[in-house]
Amino acid sequence: MQLEKYRIHSEMSRGLKKAELVFKNAHVFSAHTGEFIQGDVAVADGMVLGIGQYEGEQEINLKGKYLCPGLIDSHLHLESTLVTPGELIRQAAQCGTTTFIVDPHESANVSGTDGIDYILDQTEEVPANVFVMMPSCVPATHVDDNGCTLTAGKMKAYLDNPRILGLGEVMDAAAVINGNVSMHEKLNLFKNKIKDGHAPFLAPGELAAYAMAGISTDHECVDYEYAMAECRNGMQVLIREGSAARNLEAIVRGIVEHDGDTSGFCFCTDDKHIEEIRKDGHINYNVKKAVELGLPVEKALKMATIQAARCYGLKNLGAIAPGYQADFVVFDNLKELNVTEVYYKGTLIKRDEKVEIKPCAPYLKNTVHLLKFREDSLKLEARPGKAHVILMEEGQITTKAIHEEVPWIQAGSKRYFAPDGTYGKIAVIERHKYTGRTGAGIVKGFGLTGGAIASSVSHDSHNIIVVGDNDRDMVLAVRELIRTQGGYTLVENGSIYDTLPLPVMGLMSDAGYEEVNAKLARMIPKAYSMGIPEGFDPFITLSFMALPVIPEIRITPRGIYLVAEDRLLDNPFADIR
Amino acid sequence: MQLEKYRIHSEMSRGLKKAELVFKNAHVFSAHTGEFIQGDVAVADGMVLGIGQYEGEQEINLKGKYLCPGLIDSHLHLESTLVTPGELIRQAAQCGTTTFIVDPHESANVSGTDGIDYILDQTEEVPANVFVMMPSCVPATHVDDNGCTLTAGKMKAYLDNPRILGLGEVMDAAAVINGNVSMHEKLNLFKNKIKDGHAPFLAPGELAAYAMAGISTDHECVDYEYAMAECRNGMQVLIREGSAARNLEAIVRGIVEHDGDTSGFCFCTDDKHIEEIRKDGHINYNVKKAVELGLPVEKALKMATIQAARCYGLKNLGAIAPGYQADFVVFDNLKELNVTEVYYKGTLIKRDEKVEIKPCAPYLKNTVHLLKFREDSLKLEARPGKAHVILMEEGQITTKAIHEEVPWIQAGSKRYFAPDGTYGKIAVIERHKYTGRTGAGIVKGFGLTGGAIASSVSHDSHNIIVVGDNDRDMVLAVRELIRTQGGYTLVENGSIYDTLPLPVMGLMSDAGYEEVNAKLARMIPKAYSMGIPEGFDPFITLSFMALPVIPEIRITPRGIYLVAEDRLLDNPFADIR
Repeated sequence: MQLEKYRIHSEMSRGLKKAELVFKNAHVFSAHTGEFIQGDVAVADGMVLGIGQYEGEQEINLKGKYLCPGLIDSHLHLESTLVTPGELIRQAAQCGTTTFIVDPHESANVSGTDGIDYILDQTEEVPANVFVMMPSCVPATHVDDNGCTLTAGKMKAYLDNPRILGLGEVMDAAAVINGNVSMHEKLNLFKNKIKDGHAPFLAPGELAAYAMAGISTDHECVDYEYAMAECRNGMQVLIREGSAARNLEAIVRGIVEHDGDTSGFCFCTDDKHIEEIRKDGHINYNVKKAVELGLPVEKALKMATIQAARCYGLKNLGAIAPGYQADFVVFDNLKELNVTEVYYKGTLIKRDEKVEIKPCAPYLKNTVHLLKFREDSLKLEARPGKAHVILMEEGQITTKAIHEEVPWIQAGSKRYFAPDGTYGKIAVIERHKYTGRTGAGIVKGFGLTGGAIASSVSHDSHNIIVVGDNDRDMVLAVRELIRTQGGYTLVENGSIYDTLPLPVMGLMSDAGYEEVNAKLARMIPKAYSMGIPEGFDPFITLSFMALPVIPEIRITPRGIYLVAEDRLLDNPFADIR
Repeated sequence: MQLEKYRIHSEMSRGLKKAELVFKNAHVFSAHTGEFIQGDVAVADGMVLGIGQYEGEQEINLKGKYLCPGLIDSHLHLESTLVTPGELIRQAAQCGTTTFIVDPHESANVSGTDGIDYILDQTEEVPANVFVMMPSCVPATHVDDNGCTLTAGKMKAYLDNPRILGLGEVMDAAAVINGNVSMHEKLNLFKNKIKDGHAPFLAPGELAAYAMAGISTDHECVDYEYAMAECRNGMQVLIREGSAARNLEAIVRGIVEHDGDTSGFCFCTDDKHIEEIRKDGHINYNVKKAVELGLPVEKALKMATIQAARCYGLKNLGAIAPGYQADFVVFDNLKELNVTEVYYKGTLIKRDEKVEIKPCAPYLKNTVHLLKFREDSLKLEARPGKAHVILMEEGQITTKAIHEEVPWIQAGSKRYFAPDGTYGKIAVIERHKYTGRTGAGIVKGFGLTGGAIASSVSHDSHNIIVVGDNDRDMVLAVRELIRTQGGYTLVENGSIYDTLPLPVMGLMSDAGYEEVNAKLARMIPKAYSMGIPEGFDPFITLSFMALPVIPEIRITPRGIYLVAEDRLLDNPFADIR
């Protein structure tokens, strides 16, 4: 059958037989040679047959527009956008991204391999090529209380899945460099596959040792000098331009100024929200921005196509040439790069077509395991003297660890921290394994007054995180998220202002992006009106306060965590040095 | 153990421990970024640990010289140089080529998988990385009488051998394009591996159909325009500069003139003789010549290193970066590019060190199977009128098919062709399967008088080919090659002038290249003195006269072969049209 197909395709390639479908009158981007060529592109069975002069059973006249290979997002997480994978992919595909290399790190932290299976299943039939990297750092650190530990043993079953390309971003650089056994078991398991990096700020020798372990990409790079250092170490730099982290300008400016070799670069979004994808675009936005910064469009397109395909060993993607999959994006011109059509396997992706949300297994919608949540677990016993305080840094997800005197009240023989407009209370409640383990701390600069804000999205373990200026509202917020089995909620003066349910692993809504956007449009301005500074996105900033890899001080279910010292304190008044 | 090693290497990478070996004060070529960087290169256990500032247990001061990754010959045949594989590799390695992608097509035509095993075995312990492509076209055509038919079934056993990278040059483009079953069985067997091409002069649609079958390289390309057409079809062009075929100037001139993208190019030699390697160099000669033609040295070096490594999926070769094999070539300057040292896995390759020739299995030295050779099989019965004559073209391996009246003698009731100084006799005697099948023809322009010249190297089937102006000397020549079990021989007036025995499959000498060169130095001038025009290499030209894929007329054990018409004639006087 396969050979019969080849014979028919061969006849079409040679013009002995009309091709199934021909794109006429295009400037065709040859990713292999980095040039635009004039010609028709013949297609059959979703595959390119040839570029030249062709006649087709069906012909599409592109009238001089620019036919390019579908773009590739070389690294992204689907979960952080709050919508189901299928919706995100569909929106991004409309912008010309037809291949996605996803790391289901969030799902895995909540539901382990079930979470990975969910991502694989939900992206099985989307109009795009979706490949998955096996999350390498679940849990992200030893102080995390997450839902699952993903060992090399558990990963083994995925090795032969052709959609699993390798090991996802290896965040624990220390474990790599120091030769940690379980980390190297994972590296070794994927020794013949791609291993994605996550390596900001490594010293030169450390970077060499990290690359030597076979890690061959990084998307955390924020400047040109470090990018070049990574390239020289044999790593491919995935230039990131997402919702929060925007590294494209710094790196591309450097490339343009130095007129450097661009073969070591690709593009990625890492985390980009659906409303921003709708507004600005997806990888096409990276390309456009790079071109605006002076990068020749041919080089930018190579980064967005063949270089990413080669980096991930995707042999028939990323170019328009015989035998390649017929994934195309059509631009009207090479300056504004407006996307006029997108084709996946030769079929037009219709714009804003209603996407049916694929249901998921019930147990993935029942992941907030918090039967025994006790109100008094939020109480924070105060001691005389100063306390460790988490100081927010406006516009950043980093924090400062400071020591200050904070307000307290006496209740019987004990003193308790009494939050106010300056010093808020922050808590994280373990929600995976019914332990109800709760760590509470003090936060300055979050600004919320007269209520509480809570989320079941809190990196990377996705426990319930809550900030408020009184225990009653904080408890209400937590109970609301138990009720909805995850979500974002905002409580004001004893009543729930609104809740966005995120029932899928406590990470995603399955109600459609329109509802997500409508809820956010209501809740976010309200959060600002309750005092959260404009420099923060209320829920996104909140979601990073529990991530124990970001300096200087965090909150975990086990208490305050001092990052640089790798030290946990069960009470913020403890052990002031 | 592996992890323990990593831990030690990691400490060395980070400078916490002295590296085993450090190359100091070098301009280090970063193949990943196409730039020279200042730094020391740390090495341990034959692997690069890092580039930067390092101290080593052993230090080599390169005093500002240029340290580059070992060069890669992306396509070559070892057999045609008449010496054993180990000798050729050693000579080429001294020129800086540390990786060889070889196609044992000649050995396979004589001895099938035993021939392939011979090449694998002989190159197992050389100071270089030798990878093997499975010969795809054995026999090369349906009119060949060779030693073995290499089917997909026989190839299967090699699929998991990590040194077998894929399918060797697919010469039979028609079989590919037309969907021939046995050809596609081979292509399918190697569907996840590299498939080398051999695709000169294909029409655009044919080239597309050929590339669509998954064939991804070509080394037969002779001009820039066709090279670019191949690149646009997704093929990598291996720019060839060998002993006979020299395509570098034409292609590189085009690249330089168009300032084109060079990512689609690599270098190869295809066939380059040991004496020329000694005189001019190997892949370093390709690099040097490209630079002389105006190609930036950085681009030429990328073609010779990382681009070839990537093309063949060789992950830790072709660059100097952490985790890469420590294969280096040192140049004294970037203009003359004189090679001063070569390192394989961090160890210096000593110049002109005596190479011990690895013995081979006895049956590989007994491949001239010609017990029943009969003298009268060379007789060529003449008929009235013109005959088909092979007209040599000076300086070419192509021939012209002409019709002429030729001399004859009467013997009893029969006439026989009578060779003279103008019209020689040419014959090919099957030597693999004891059939003694002999085809004889008439050749004009070969020029040999007063003797005969014979060879067991005759592409691609390597039967015994002989040219002479009298049967007695031709028979003597054939009998001599039966005696030596293959070789080159020259007969003059009834006695053997000299013979170079090539006992290994009738293709190679195991007596060392010095003896080969000494013999050739004696025999070749003698052949010229007997009338062979200076435009030919007597033995090499002879070796191509039986290759049924080169226009216009050839000689095979089954008779004269008219290439364009695909027509065999058992007698040159037959069927004049």
